[in-house]
Amino acid sequence: MEKEISQAVIGRLPRYFRFLGELKDQGVERISSQELSRLMHVTASQIRQDFNHFGGFGQQGYGYNVEYLYTAIGRILGLDRKHHLIIIGAGNLGQALANYMNFERRGFLFTGIFDINEALHGRRIRGIQVRPMEEMQDFIRENDIDIAVLTIPKDGAVATAEKLVEAGIKAIWNFAHVDLDVPDDVQVENVHLSDSLFRLSYMANRYEKQKKAAPRDDR
Amino acid sequence: MEKEISQAVIGRLPRYFRFLGELKDQGVERISSQELSRLMHVTASQIRQDFNHFGGFGQQGYGYNVEYLYTAIGRILGLDRKHHLIIIGAGNLGQALANYMNFERRGFLFTGIFDINEALHGRRIRGIQVRPMEEMQDFIRENDIDIAVLTIPKDGAVATAEKLVEAGIKAIWNFAHVDLDVPDDVQVENVHLSDSLFRLSYMANRYEKQKKAAPRDDR
Repeated sequence: MEKEISQAVIGRLPRYFRFLGELKDQGVERISSQELSRLMHVTASQIRQDFNHFGGFGQQGYGYNVEYLYTAIGRILGLDRKHHLIIIGAGNLGQALANYMNFERRGFLFTGIFDINEALHGRRIRGIQVRPMEEMQDFIRENDIDIAVLTIPKDGAVATAEKLVEAGIKAIWNFAHVDLDVPDDVQVENVHLSDSLFRLSYMANRYEKQKKAAPRDDR
Repeated sequence: MEKEISQAVIGRLPRYFRFLGELKDQGVERISSQELSRLMHVTASQIRQDFNHFGGFGQQGYGYNVEYLYTAIGRILGLDRKHHLIIIGAGNLGQALANYMNFERRGFLFTGIFDINEALHGRRIRGIQVRPMEEMQDFIRENDIDIAVLTIPKDGAVATAEKLVEAGIKAIWNFAHVDLDVPDDVQVENVHLSDSLFRLSYMANRYEKQKKAAPRDDR
């Protein structure tokens, strides 16, 4: 059913899902691509094109059924099934992610957390015990884990990713400040926080300069 | 000096900066676009094109001076000056970001943190006291704050962003699960963690399906 889909379209799907979820919560039953376009600041033709990748989802001139579209995109995103997730690194970020209940609501079940620091072993985070790194591979194999979240410093991240792959992990959510080299059948989604902060810094900086250079130019 | 630069190029700059920083730490003095290309999995012609936006940075056939390039890109990213940063929300994520020392090293000074929860007021995070939200606007005006980090739930985020803008903030690093509507002169960089996790879920899911549909098709 699905054709080859570009990274750009995939990148936009979670945002559609989020907006449709809000519409659904507000009791909206139908929405036209024009209305959705205004709400999301995306052109209506972009929306129609994106949805066409997945068979359309709606009747022209009649608008989309919000509930149906929400469920369909959720299914495409793999949110109609449960995922078992482990977190590597029980530092501040690891704990923040473990405590983020919203993921659980979407079927991402926080199942285990591992740390190199002995002082943390046995401590519980949302009822889940922090375990030593040495137990990670067996835990993955025994608990049907499909997603690993890497929140450790970059120095250990590459070697740990190799161990994850060895144990059968096919999806890594990488917060370590390093690009991972993994086999083709392993998916990596990077959240490089510094890169993101630097982009913001660039944009703010650039705007400042433009303003100084041409104070009356409002673009 | 700088021409109009596309979002795609800007998006790549922090990654160049990161790789060059590592090369510098390893004592590498010069690197050709071919070598950098192999390292970063980006084509050499892409690298040359990107750098041409900023005046080139190197002699053809001779390679780039790593230190010079690192410093130049850092300057473009606005990392040659200090930024004063406040965090809104002293929950797990706010604390994780406050404790992330690497930002400080790059000139992003953690200056204040605010929360709606009275129980947290007065508590110190890296020596900085958690303050009530009511003090936020005065604090921004009195302490020359240029970046605000939003780590609160989406319900309060839109109203809080308006207050930030009112107080003069021009750069918002937004972790709240909502798109902010701000004036054109305010820069927003979103880190939508759920969107990121859903993309990973999509890719992993899709790969599974392909494998089942065509177990011998290795593309």
